[in-house]
Amino acid sequence: MSGALMAAEMAEQPERLAALLERAGDLAESIRAVVPRPLAGTTLIARGSSDHAAVYGRYLIEPASRRPVGLASPSLLTLYDADVDYDGYLAIAISQSGRTPEIATTLRRVRELGGRTVAITNDPHSELAGDADAVVDLAAGPERAVPATKTVTTEMLALALLARGLGDVPFSAAELSELPAWVGDVLADEGEAQVLAERLIGRPRVVVVARGPLYGAALEIALKIKETCGILADPYSAADLRHGPIAAVHPDVPVVALSVPGRADEDMAALVDLLRERDVTVHVLGFDVPEALAPIPAVVRGQQVARALSLGMGLDPDEPAGLTKVTPT
Amino acid sequence: MSGALMAAEMAEQPERLAALLERAGDLAESIRAVVPRPLAGTTLIARGSSDHAAVYGRYLIEPASRRPVGLASPSLLTLYDADVDYDGYLAIAISQSGRTPEIATTLRRVRELGGRTVAITNDPHSELAGDADAVVDLAAGPERAVPATKTVTTEMLALALLARGLGDVPFSAAELSELPAWVGDVLADEGEAQVLAERLIGRPRVVVVARGPLYGAALEIALKIKETCGILADPYSAADLRHGPIAAVHPDVPVVALSVPGRADEDMAALVDLLRERDVTVHVLGFDVPEALAPIPAVVRGQQVARALSLGMGLDPDEPAGLTKVTPT
Repeated sequence: MSGALMAAEMAEQPERLAALLERAGDLAESIRAVVPRPLAGTTLIARGSSDHAAVYGRYLIEPASRRPVGLASPSLLTLYDADVDYDGYLAIAISQSGRTPEIATTLRRVRELGGRTVAITNDPHSELAGDADAVVDLAAGPERAVPATKTVTTEMLALALLARGLGDVPFSAAELSELPAWVGDVLADEGEAQVLAERLIGRPRVVVVARGPLYGAALEIALKIKETCGILADPYSAADLRHGPIAAVHPDVPVVALSVPGRADEDMAALVDLLRERDVTVHVLGFDVPEALAPIPAVVRGQQVARALSLGMGLDPDEPAGLTKVTPT
Repeated sequence: MSGALMAAEMAEQPERLAALLERAGDLAESIRAVVPRPLAGTTLIARGSSDHAAVYGRYLIEPASRRPVGLASPSLLTLYDADVDYDGYLAIAISQSGRTPEIATTLRRVRELGGRTVAITNDPHSELAGDADAVVDLAAGPERAVPATKTVTTEMLALALLARGLGDVPFSAAELSELPAWVGDVLADEGEAQVLAERLIGRPRVVVVARGPLYGAALEIALKIKETCGILADPYSAADLRHGPIAAVHPDVPVVALSVPGRADEDMAALVDLLRERDVTVHVLGFDVPEALAPIPAVVRGQQVARALSLGMGLDPDEPAGLTKVTPT
């Protein structure tokens, strides 16, 4: 009941991220060797937490590669036998275990259909890795807690490093090198997570909202809260929330807003004002790091919140009821 | 308080769909005139209900065009000034009003960046239509109820007809011609919607789940329930639900499962079994129509459920608290 596994794996993140950063040059080289020239577009293939890493990666890969990026609908290839021509496409599949059958099947089909394939996985000997032209080994070490933590943040960093191999990214090498320390700072200060967790105890619902690169972090934080606490945490992009779902955000539904100085902060501030005018309690999680890298420490803060909340509810965050580590789809 | 506006607009759907079907040949011709040859890929640009139509359309356009389809992240172009090359891309923007500024800005940017553009809108004189190489006029008539109904189903049909102009689709002309009658059948029989609405009254949460083409319908049904009833309705693909969120589906959270005979029915049946083993109440909404067109009558059934539930809760479905018809993002 201590959540010791999850805590230990969370604590490894600075060193795992630092180790991945040391291979930044290799990752850049491997993606440049694989990317089709000319590039028609990029497809990201993932589910669950890895899909949230993909949503983050899209904000970096699209501007870096200067070609559109989309997220695959695996069922089109695995259930509906769509005969899609992937010539000129870079396909990046992301799976911690490399053993989610549907993700592996999708990547194999994309390769058969002409795409160049990359697997980002924690198991370089997995079926998924076997179907890839290039493999990014997260080398995050075994993950035994059911809620994924260190594999998600290393997946996010791997995508940022692949983007850097493809072209311009909105962060510098110096900023990258500071990332492990930023994550360490988040881990060292549990105060904010404790305060937020205490506010959320006993609430059946919570909304997590962000815009831009932080949207992927909002998706992941909501999933962590769902998984570990059984609370129906709903993630939204700030833009989508106004398109109807805001009607279901009553004063008894707390909102967690992720914010960082950057292009999206005006939109976020306007949304926070709108919610507060409606007597909704908004807790802003702010991060004073470059917007394009902020999602990584933000996800770590969310892990802390989910773990503290789970323990506060008398639950075991390491093994949430009814979940297993590998799912069939 | 009668929800008369929403009911009247829902009732128009068979005739509006039939009128759009009469222009099927024009739509196919206009998309063929616009689509780049060779086609690199397709980008769909939308928010809210129109985004749900896009999720549906993706399942048809990707196999029909035989090139990958992705959903745009508008903020990349509107906030982050991404310099993305859209040469070879078909971009389809979908907006009822044509006046959602961010959607119009995104389509204009895509056109400037080399993409060929199509606008699907209920206002052929809107800013959005002005930025398009081809315009699909939904001709659904003015929509005055805040929850979009007839414009969503006509958007879905428009996307199906554009897919048909691009290549092979998994439905026949004869089946298409029956669509208005199927929708009429759903409208004529309110019994199932009433039963389901009565089961949902008083529940703060509900989950809506589907797989394949029906996933877009699940998104739209959940939004309608959120908008009109203020209930936090969570949509999931059956595949994603198992990846963690299932932990937050307790026996007190009812699940609505959309199902139709087809490629996804085995996965859906397995999920329904899994949920029932956990003592979750699952209400299966079944449709005996071809899977690729079923999402349209499914959305209409969802409109009925949302309206009946809203009225049952003493609310006004025509003008839900705190919503407006056009949003800035």
